[in-house]
Amino acid sequence: MKRVVVERKILQRNDEAADIIRKRLAEKGIFALNFMSSPGAGKTSVIEKTINALKNSFRISFIDGDLETDRDAERIRKLGVDVVQINTSGACHLDANMVLKALDKLSLECDLLIIENVGNLVCPASFDVGADKNIVILSVPEGDDKVKKYPVMFNVADVVLINKTDLYGLLEFDREKVISEIREIKPDAEIFEVSCKTSAGFDAWLEYLRGIVPKEIL
Amino acid sequence: MKRVVVERKILQRNDEAADIIRKRLAEKGIFALNFMSSPGAGKTSVIEKTINALKNSFRISFIDGDLETDRDAERIRKLGVDVVQINTSGACHLDANMVLKALDKLSLECDLLIIENVGNLVCPASFDVGADKNIVILSVPEGDDKVKKYPVMFNVADVVLINKTDLYGLLEFDREKVISEIREIKPDAEIFEVSCKTSAGFDAWLEYLRGIVPKEIL
Repeated sequence: MKRVVVERKILQRNDEAADIIRKRLAEKGIFALNFMSSPGAGKTSVIEKTINALKNSFRISFIDGDLETDRDAERIRKLGVDVVQINTSGACHLDANMVLKALDKLSLECDLLIIENVGNLVCPASFDVGADKNIVILSVPEGDDKVKKYPVMFNVADVVLINKTDLYGLLEFDREKVISEIREIKPDAEIFEVSCKTSAGFDAWLEYLRGIVPKEIL
Repeated sequence: MKRVVVERKILQRNDEAADIIRKRLAEKGIFALNFMSSPGAGKTSVIEKTINALKNSFRISFIDGDLETDRDAERIRKLGVDVVQINTSGACHLDANMVLKALDKLSLECDLLIIENVGNLVCPASFDVGADKNIVILSVPEGDDKVKKYPVMFNVADVVLINKTDLYGLLEFDREKVISEIREIKPDAEIFEVSCKTSAGFDAWLEYLRGIVPKEIL
């Protein structure tokens, strides 16, 4: 019981910080995406391709959350966007206070802020980081039973990207079952089926983003 | 700071419960394995194949930890072993108290207890569940950069199973790099490369288990 109270306090403090983030971003006219998934589902690859496609239309900043290493941040820095690395030193998710501190290190002269959360299909779902949209990636090799097994994550998803669809057919994965289970848990989630390898499905995903991110330079 | 103290207390209470588990299992001569991995790395499939191969030599019991659903428990129950399902109701890992309660529901007339943790490459690493060996599964589709990104998990691994090796060649995965990074973090970890699909590598893994699990019926 005591533990539940402690957790509630932690989450309450987190929500307060998330509200500050939301306010600060709104003042600057910045739209924020929070990418979440299991380790290896393809967060960094999807973000890399997305930035490459949009960087001439939007000014983009990137916050990378990782337990250790700055491998992902380095990949994205090469694309020429403003990057801040958060090393959580073992913590299993980003929280709003970490993101708030990271904001101070960014110029915030951008239209789109992309946040890559720690690879974890459980804990990040409970911590609002002040983003406008939560993007959850599920990759084909993880299997088609994951939606019902990790409902908390799919319940906070505004968008689900089913990634590595180039492996449809090669691996057992009932896409209709997955899509219907997502719809059951989160009826209004947008669903896109994509492959970073073949670029299949990226047009629809990018068109969706162009429709929701408010400001375009060009 | 306050949060760190709370976490330390939670972990201390967990360690006490883990010691009780260890003592209870030792009295009964039961050897316990704790399987951990990301979602979809293949814990249930590896356990299924392992139980099928060993069930005539050892009496086996199984504890399944999941956020929701009893899909995995059902798969294993079909093999005729004693199964207890723990639904963590959203918690991101098994802790020793959950396992202790589950032990009361098992007959404990067994030689080998297999525990399947929640799919998560972060949090379960911090919670000792009183097992003799921690088995960490890394699957090829997750990518070859995961060892350094999730060092806490590999640091508690007694055994690392690199699974889905049938996808070597099809997916980019530098196995030598992965093995050398595991050795760097945990020099004495046993490493096996396996495929549930082709059964490659299973002989070595099963031979290893036969060597460490003390009691054989036959």
